[in-house]
This record gives sequence, C-alpha cells and structure tokens, in this order.
Amino acid sequence: MSLIVQKFGGTSVADPERIMNVAKRVAKTYDQGNDVVVILSAMAGVTDGLIAMARKVSESPDNRELDVLLATGEQTTCALLAMNLKSMNYPAQSLMGHQVEVMTDHCFGNARILDIKADRIRELLEKRHIVVVAGFQGCDPDGNITTLGRGGSDTSAVAIAAAVKADVCEIYTDVDGIYTADPNICPKARKLDTISYDEMLNMASLGAKVLQIRSVGFAKKYKIPVHVRSSFSEEEGTMVVDENSGMERLVVSGVTHDTNQARITLKKVPDQPGVAAKIFSPMASAGIVVDMIIQNTRAEGQTDLTFTVPRNDFKKALKLQKEVAADIGAEEVFGDQNIAKISVIGVGMKDHSGVASTMFAALANENINITMISTSEIRISCVIEEKYAELAVRVLHTAFGLDTRE
Amino acid sequence: MSLIVQKFGGTSVADPERIMNVAKRVAKTYDQGNDVVVILSAMAGVTDGLIAMARKVSESPDNRELDVLLATGEQTTCALLAMNLKSMNYPAQSLMGHQVEVMTDHCFGNARILDIKADRIRELLEKRHIVVVAGFQGCDPDGNITTLGRGGSDTSAVAIAAAVKADVCEIYTDVDGIYTADPNICPKARKLDTISYDEMLNMASLGAKVLQIRSVGFAKKYKIPVHVRSSFSEEEGTMVVDENSGMERLVVSGVTHDTNQARITLKKVPDQPGVAAKIFSPMASAGIVVDMIIQNTRAEGQTDLTFTVPRNDFKKALKLQKEVAADIGAEEVFGDQNIAKISVIGVGMKDHSGVASTMFAALANENINITMISTSEIRISCVIEEKYAELAVRVLHTAFGLDTRE
Repeated sequence: MSLIVQKFGGTSVADPERIMNVAKRVAKTYDQGNDVVVILSAMAGVTDGLIAMARKVSESPDNRELDVLLATGEQTTCALLAMNLKSMNYPAQSLMGHQVEVMTDHCFGNARILDIKADRIRELLEKRHIVVVAGFQGCDPDGNITTLGRGGSDTSAVAIAAAVKADVCEIYTDVDGIYTADPNICPKARKLDTISYDEMLNMASLGAKVLQIRSVGFAKKYKIPVHVRSSFSEEEGTMVVDENSGMERLVVSGVTHDTNQARITLKKVPDQPGVAAKIFSPMASAGIVVDMIIQNTRAEGQTDLTFTVPRNDFKKALKLQKEVAADIGAEEVFGDQNIAKISVIGVGMKDHSGVASTMFAALANENINITMISTSEIRISCVIEEKYAELAVRVLHTAFGLDTRE
Repeated sequence: MSLIVQKFGGTSVADPERIMNVAKRVAKTYDQGNDVVVILSAMAGVTDGLIAMARKVSESPDNRELDVLLATGEQTTCALLAMNLKSMNYPAQSLMGHQVEVMTDHCFGNARILDIKADRIRELLEKRHIVVVAGFQGCDPDGNITTLGRGGSDTSAVAIAAAVKADVCEIYTDVDGIYTADPNICPKARKLDTISYDEMLNMASLGAKVLQIRSVGFAKKYKIPVHVRSSFSEEEGTMVVDENSGMERLVVSGVTHDTNQARITLKKVPDQPGVAAKIFSPMASAGIVVDMIIQNTRAEGQTDLTFTVPRNDFKKALKLQKEVAADIGAEEVFGDQNIAKISVIGVGMKDHSGVASTMFAALANENINITMISTSEIRISCVIEEKYAELAVRVLHTAFGLDTRE
C-alpha cells in the first residue's frame, strides 16, 4: 500500500466525460489499497477563456483579481470529480488552495510556494478519503488567492506530494512519457523508462514541454519520484528520479531542439570593463530573457559578442542593441532569426569524455555548420541553421545510440 | 457621506458589458464621497449551467461539492467587476465568502448565516477601497464552502450591511421597485415609495419575488433600510423600512395573487384528538409545504378539513390523503387545482376596522365566490376560482384606493 499523488492536466479533465474517466482511474488506484491525493488543472481551454473575458473588462487586468478569476477553473473540475467519486460511493472531498493552506508569496500570477500545511489532507487520508486538491492555486499570508503561473499544477502536485510524503507523484498528461527526442521529427525516438531530475531540468527548459520546470526542481529538492504517464492508456510512462537510484545509465539520454530562438551579434565591441553590463542591462529591463552568450576575443582591444533571445523578442532586442552599439562604440549589430539550438543531455557525460567530439563529428558529417556552442556539466548545445534542425536531431540520436532497438 | 451596500443580481451582471455598467454606477456612488461595498450574484444562467454540468457526473450531486462548484459563479463576477474598477483607476478589491468570514452552519445548499466578521471589509473601507463581495456564499466553522440557497445574495447583502453598519442596503434588480400589485395584470398598480419590513415579508411570501424572504427578516432584525431599485435606470425605487420611520401610511399597501396553489378537502373527518397530526405528518415527511388550513365544524362529531399545497405537489398530496382518509375513516377526499389566493396587505390594518368587509364586499360585487379565508395581523387572504384572479386584484386595488392618482 502506497500514498500516491495523481495529477491530471487540462486535456484529461476537458469535459464531464473525461472527468468520469479520471474518477475511474482514481478509484482503481484506491481499490488497490492505496491512499490517493488527486491534483487537478482547469478544463483545457477554460483558463484562456477566462483571460479573454478579463480582457473585455480591462486592457491589462489587475493581477490580484485575475488570480481570483482563474482560480475558478480548478475549483470547477475538483468539485465535479469529487461529486462523481461520491456518486460511485467513494469517500471523496475537494479542497481549494486556501483550504490545503498552500502558502505562497504575494506574487500574483506567478506565485512561489513557501509552505504547505496539508493538515486537512492528512486528516482526510487517515479516514481513508480520496482528497481532490485544486492545482495551480494557493493563498498568500494575507489570505489572498494566488496562482502559480502556467503549468503550475505540476508544481502543486509535486509540492503536495512532498508535504504529505507521498511515495510517488504521478503526472497524467497527453503524452505517454519522456522521449529521447521529439518523435514527430525523429521516428526512431524511444520512450525512456527513467530519467534523472537534472536531465529533466535540462530537457524541460530546452523544449520537452511535458513538465513545468519548477516542479522538477521541487521534486529534486524533496526527492519525490515523479511518474510521467498518459491519462489515456494504462502503460507505464517515464520515472523522473534521483540519478543514483539505480536508473538506466546512458551517456546521452536525449536530444532536444529549440527553433524558438534568434541570434544577435555585436561586432567589434570595445574590450573594456562594464561593457557587458551596458549590453545586457537594457535587455533585463525590457524583460527579455537572454539564453546563450558567447564572446570571442579579437585583436586590438576589441571583441565580438553574440547571444540568443526568444524569437518573439528579436525585433525589440535588435532595436535596443542598436542604441547600445551607438553608445559603446561597437561597429555593427546584426541578427539572425533562422537558427535552431540542438542539445544533447545526459548525466553520463560527467564520466565520459568524447561526447562533444562525437557531437561535432556527427554534425560535420552532414555538412551542418555550428555557429555557437555552449556546454554545462550534463549538456552540450550547438546553434545551427534552422533548416538543418530536424536532420541534426536524427543524426545525433543515431550517433549516441538512442535509436529504437529492433 | 454614507456607507452604502449595493447588491446587483444575475441579470445586472449577465455579461462583461453589463458588469462595466455596474462599475460605472458603483464609481458614481463612490465619487459622491460614499463608502461602497458591492455584493454580486453570478451571471444570470450560470448557476443553472453549473447544476446541469453537475448532473452529468452525478444523478444527485453531493451537496458539499455542489456548493464548491456553485461558488465559482460569484467568484467570476466579483473578479471581473474589481478588475474593471481598477482599470478605471478606482481602488477595488474582491473578497470571497471565506475571506469576509461569512460564517454559516453546515447546511450545504441552504446554509444560514451565523456571524460575519467583516474585519477585512472594514480595513479596506478605512483605506477608501471599494469592496466587492461574493454574494450567496459563506463558509462553515470547518472552512468548507457553503451557499445560502436561491436568492441568497440578497441575504448576503443585508447581513453584510448589518455587519458593517451600513446606512442603506441597495438591491439593484430588473424591476424598479415594489408595486401595489402586479402591473402585468393591474395596469393601475403604482410603485410604493416605502413599505414596512412586515408588509414586505407578507408580499414576498405571497409572490412579489423581488427579495429573498430571509433577507427581509435580517433587515427587520437589524433595522437596515433596504432600497429596492432598478439597475437599468437612475430612478428611486422602494424603501423597505421600519413601520415607525415616518413612512407613508396606507391602510392597505398591496394586493397580491398566487395562482400556484391547489386545494385539498377531506370531508367528514372524525372530530377526534390526533386526527390533524395523522393528516399533516405524512405531508411534512414528503416535504410538501401546506399553506392555508381551514377546519369547519360539522354536526355529529365530524368535521371538514381543507388546506392548500403548491400546485406541483397536488397529485402527490392527493394520493397521500386518500391513504390517510382510509386510515382515519374520512368519507371523501377531493381537490381543486384551479384556485387562486388573493391577499391584501397593510400595517394600517392594525388600526383600521372594516378591511375584511370591504374586501368581501368588493369581491361579492363582481360575483366572485370566496372558498377559503385566512387572516393575520396585517394580511387577509381569500381563495377564489383561478379564472377570477386578475379581476379580483383589480377590483381590490380600486376598492382600497391604490389606483394611480391621475
């Protein structure tokens, strides 16, 4: 018998019929003798609908009130699931963020969890109740309703799993696990049985889009095994676990691609203290997230500096940098939107040399030019021309032995 | 400068456009230097939609969870109104039932208010904020979300007005006040400037349908003046006040009709102790509300007993009474669905004689037969044939001098 937290996303609770399917799955887990805490998102599309309604009454809706509005989405699904479970004669009860005491900071719209009391969850579990908790929402120390930002229900689930010391946190979603690459562009991609928290952190930020990145950080901190699986099948998905917990050891666990980046280069930047700050401070002020930064040394006290930004922010960033260039006396600013960032990720890299050279050789074999490189302990990323992105993923997938075994 | 509670019903907040109209009215009251607390219902139709959704997942939805679901309706309108006010640069904040601490009993779906702390309302008012409170909802001592039953937002408004010691509680609705009779059937009906709590209590229960009856009881207890007025015009409506507060004194303030009743008669009931209990206990067990009861003495230790029930319950009641009649030895049971109850109401009756005879004479003049009569301190009700209902209202309206003064 285990204590299991099950989180269902918006597509899994998109209408009353799907909610009834969720109830069946929850009931089955309960009938096997497990204690179950369910975390729900709003019905798919509802949050966007509420935001659209808010925009009808306000151009830029007040953050506090937007959270009050958005919190109704999860309240609806939780009430419906608890109702359905009760009509099936299971003892079930819904709890909202403030009732569970998911305490957050005051940052409406993107609040961080400070603490979870969870006393009411524990009391109900002791009475063998199924507890249905609204994801995505909490309350600040003044009792205001807060929300955790996009994908926040994942973080709710993992944080509540940590608070009640669950054996596992199951994340039910519309994919059946974490793949070694995007199966849409790499047909030989295969589902991983396990992946480490650190690999997942790198996968998520690079575009795997399955789990909210913050939830993975929580899971790592409290060592909560996270099981990513499909709500539409019974198959096992992918376990996200501590890297020392006997997981499958691959040198590289995955190849990811990100075509949502753009590159900006400042040519012949005076190589003086304080110049980098002058370049990046306006970006931070404008809320533009800079990802990779590369600086090449040139002769004669000058340097070239290149960095990437989200493609949506490209025009704004280019305009800002033209002002910066005039200010600091850089020769030229130019950019490129047709790039892709390809990364290989794996905790195995720590103990293996030659991963970088294998990567570069595989790309060179296909005549794919690398324009930027950045590395971390468990990741190597290269920027290439966008048109080669899919080919690059496939050749790296093969080069690192990830292809489906026949 | 006054402290004003303004309550807007479902039709007044039916869509974002109407919510923006409500905001304008609230802002105007605030700009006149008043402190304002706004109480909102859910958008018209939303509560019924939520109940329909609940029925998809459960034949008889759990009461606790139904309240969690229904409470989202007011949460939505409150957030939208506060947002709109903020976008107009007014300091506004929404508060849900649990945040205001509208403490209720545990009776989900029809909870009674036990106490309202309202500390947060007072704090916000001191800072000259507009406070937007979700009507219809509260929480029980265990922190569960509760709702107050149909029309509960009126009760929320009056109870909150009492808690914050408001100068007036304005109820904005789709009618422009309380009329001396239903204008649809009595063209000469006129709007009353004032009406007493007791008259209103009798009007409401007899079908005026403007205010939830419970809210009037609250207003009377705490002596809160209630201003019933239209959300679609600037005109003054009707003040519901204490009868000693210098209001207009009419002998009769209104004529009401109720065509939703049916009559059941038990003929030749043995006149013995305990018989009435045998007749009415099964009705209570079946949840049938009995309104008027009349017992006529007959000769020979027998009596005829007649009572009225809601027309929807007529068939069920008749079946029950046929069993009762067999049990107690009554001769016959028969009923009539084509009846109407016509009432005249007025605190002035206390000091005036002859009201009953004026009523009976006016009906007799039109050859309208009276089949049942019941009286209270400020009300006389007659049951007549349904087909005469509208005529009866008009002749009584004229007989008591209520017709519009030319």
